[in-house]
Amino acid sequence: VSENVDDTLVRVSREADLTDRVVASFATCPDPRLREVMSSLVRHLHGFIRDVRLTQAEWDAAIAFLTRAGHITDERRQEFILLSDVLGASMMTVAVNAPTRSDATEATVFGPFFVEGAPLISNGADIGAGMAGRPCYVHGTVRSATGYPLAGARVDVWAADDEGFYDVQYEGGPLAGRARLYTDDAGCFDYWTVEPAAYPIPHDGPVGDLLSATGRSPMRPAHIHFMVCHPEYRTLITHIFVDGDEWLDKDAVFGVKDSLVVPFSVHEPGRGPRGRVLREPWSSVSLDIALASDSPHV
Amino acid sequence: VSENVDDTLVRVSREADLTDRVVASFATCPDPRLREVMSSLVRHLHGFIRDVRLTQAEWDAAIAFLTRAGHITDERRQEFILLSDVLGASMMTVAVNAPTRSDATEATVFGPFFVEGAPLISNGADIGAGMAGRPCYVHGTVRSATGYPLAGARVDVWAADDEGFYDVQYEGGPLAGRARLYTDDAGCFDYWTVEPAAYPIPHDGPVGDLLSATGRSPMRPAHIHFMVCHPEYRTLITHIFVDGDEWLDKDAVFGVKDSLVVPFSVHEPGRGPRGRVLREPWSSVSLDIALASDSPHV
Repeated sequence: VSENVDDTLVRVSREADLTDRVVASFATCPDPRLREVMSSLVRHLHGFIRDVRLTQAEWDAAIAFLTRAGHITDERRQEFILLSDVLGASMMTVAVNAPTRSDATEATVFGPFFVEGAPLISNGADIGAGMAGRPCYVHGTVRSATGYPLAGARVDVWAADDEGFYDVQYEGGPLAGRARLYTDDAGCFDYWTVEPAAYPIPHDGPVGDLLSATGRSPMRPAHIHFMVCHPEYRTLITHIFVDGDEWLDKDAVFGVKDSLVVPFSVHEPGRGPRGRVLREPWSSVSLDIALASDSPHV
Repeated sequence: VSENVDDTLVRVSREADLTDRVVASFATCPDPRLREVMSSLVRHLHGFIRDVRLTQAEWDAAIAFLTRAGHITDERRQEFILLSDVLGASMMTVAVNAPTRSDATEATVFGPFFVEGAPLISNGADIGAGMAGRPCYVHGTVRSATGYPLAGARVDVWAADDEGFYDVQYEGGPLAGRARLYTDDAGCFDYWTVEPAAYPIPHDGPVGDLLSATGRSPMRPAHIHFMVCHPEYRTLITHIFVDGDEWLDKDAVFGVKDSLVVPFSVHEPGRGPRGRVLREPWSSVSLDIALASDSPHV
């Protein structure tokens, strides 16, 4: 249906006026940052609704989608993080907080599978006991971006097993494949686990339905999560990805960066690091983590 | 921290590239409308994150907010509709679906308090039994925008009581103040209820916390909800507002339109419509509802 010029002007002005009134409702917000965030959110949200001429049925579908996402979310499942991830909102948040140029290790998505209360382990321990997959020895160093080794850095690690599942996805299962450890005096940490596999993000909920309806794959390339904290440096949330994985260029959550793809070496059965004797092939990976200084944009 | 021009260009290009990659992930979406909606959603969502330089802590807060909203939502409480309402997203959806010029009754927000299964009543029945508030007689007509009376139009009504609460807000209480009825051969409907009061939207959840943090009031002016359906006309979702209400110009959900504000007349005790004898003052209101034809933009 075509519209004459006068009607178009009336419509555009009426819609802009509504947006202005909603933004104005935040004018007396006592927190200037919250006012800025809410005003921008309203302008972009209204802009989206105007641009696509959202129908009432689509609005209903959006409310139902968010409701389902809320109801499937619990201590072991976080559908809103998945949603943010598959829309690239998580990676955009990472991007706007990253320094433009830096010698520090790059960040990527946090993901929905971190849980508080992972076991505190000593270096060299095995966190892969009982998990499906090839034994894998992980050795890393943590240093400043200027090259200074960092002792006592806290390292949280978590990863899926060879089936592509995290511990928390097994009903009633024990925590596994995740731990907290600290770097030694040389800035090193090491542990045994199992080599992670590529996996689909949980796709039996509304986010999975969205991916399916839009013809997108839920697969993520194999990776291990790291969160590294030191009081004098910026906390780093990142992954390492297994070099050669077929999903590296089509990660469902847009988390891959070239610098984070590292080779995993495969070894014959025999004696491995930390005196472990292996009756099956095993793999190892080394990584070098560099933390930026604590100032947000340096 | 200032940034040189080269760094700015790198940053802007890196962020734009991420948005383009996410939009491209929807390129093979089999449904063209869904592709359009998702692409626009991603561009606006990313634009918001870029414009405000969203911090990781703010992203965490957003995920926690949505999680709380999901967990408080059940069959009687719909926090996502409240959120859409207080951000003006509901009214923007109404606006983009409204004809620019029309003789039809204007629409407003649906709100979170409609429930399926309201009692089917005959014209003249009382749906205010047991509710707090002054008895109120509602008489309406339903016609086409061209003035033709519409028999057999389905009219759903729901409203708060004199305390500002809907039936579903009383734990375990019966349905009250809501009904479904049909217009008679002259296009008329009528029923007894109680006069609604201004009220705060439910503000003991995350949306209430948002209003509080931003210095906004949760109040809505007194109103009665109507949803009117007829097979040959556009479904109308609207309210009438009580003329003189002090909150008319500061509705928390931006739902007021001048054409929807109507006078409620107060009467002395005595005999009222439908033979009802009243021992206390009562009020009455008349409304004239005009439905647009079923074509979306006529």
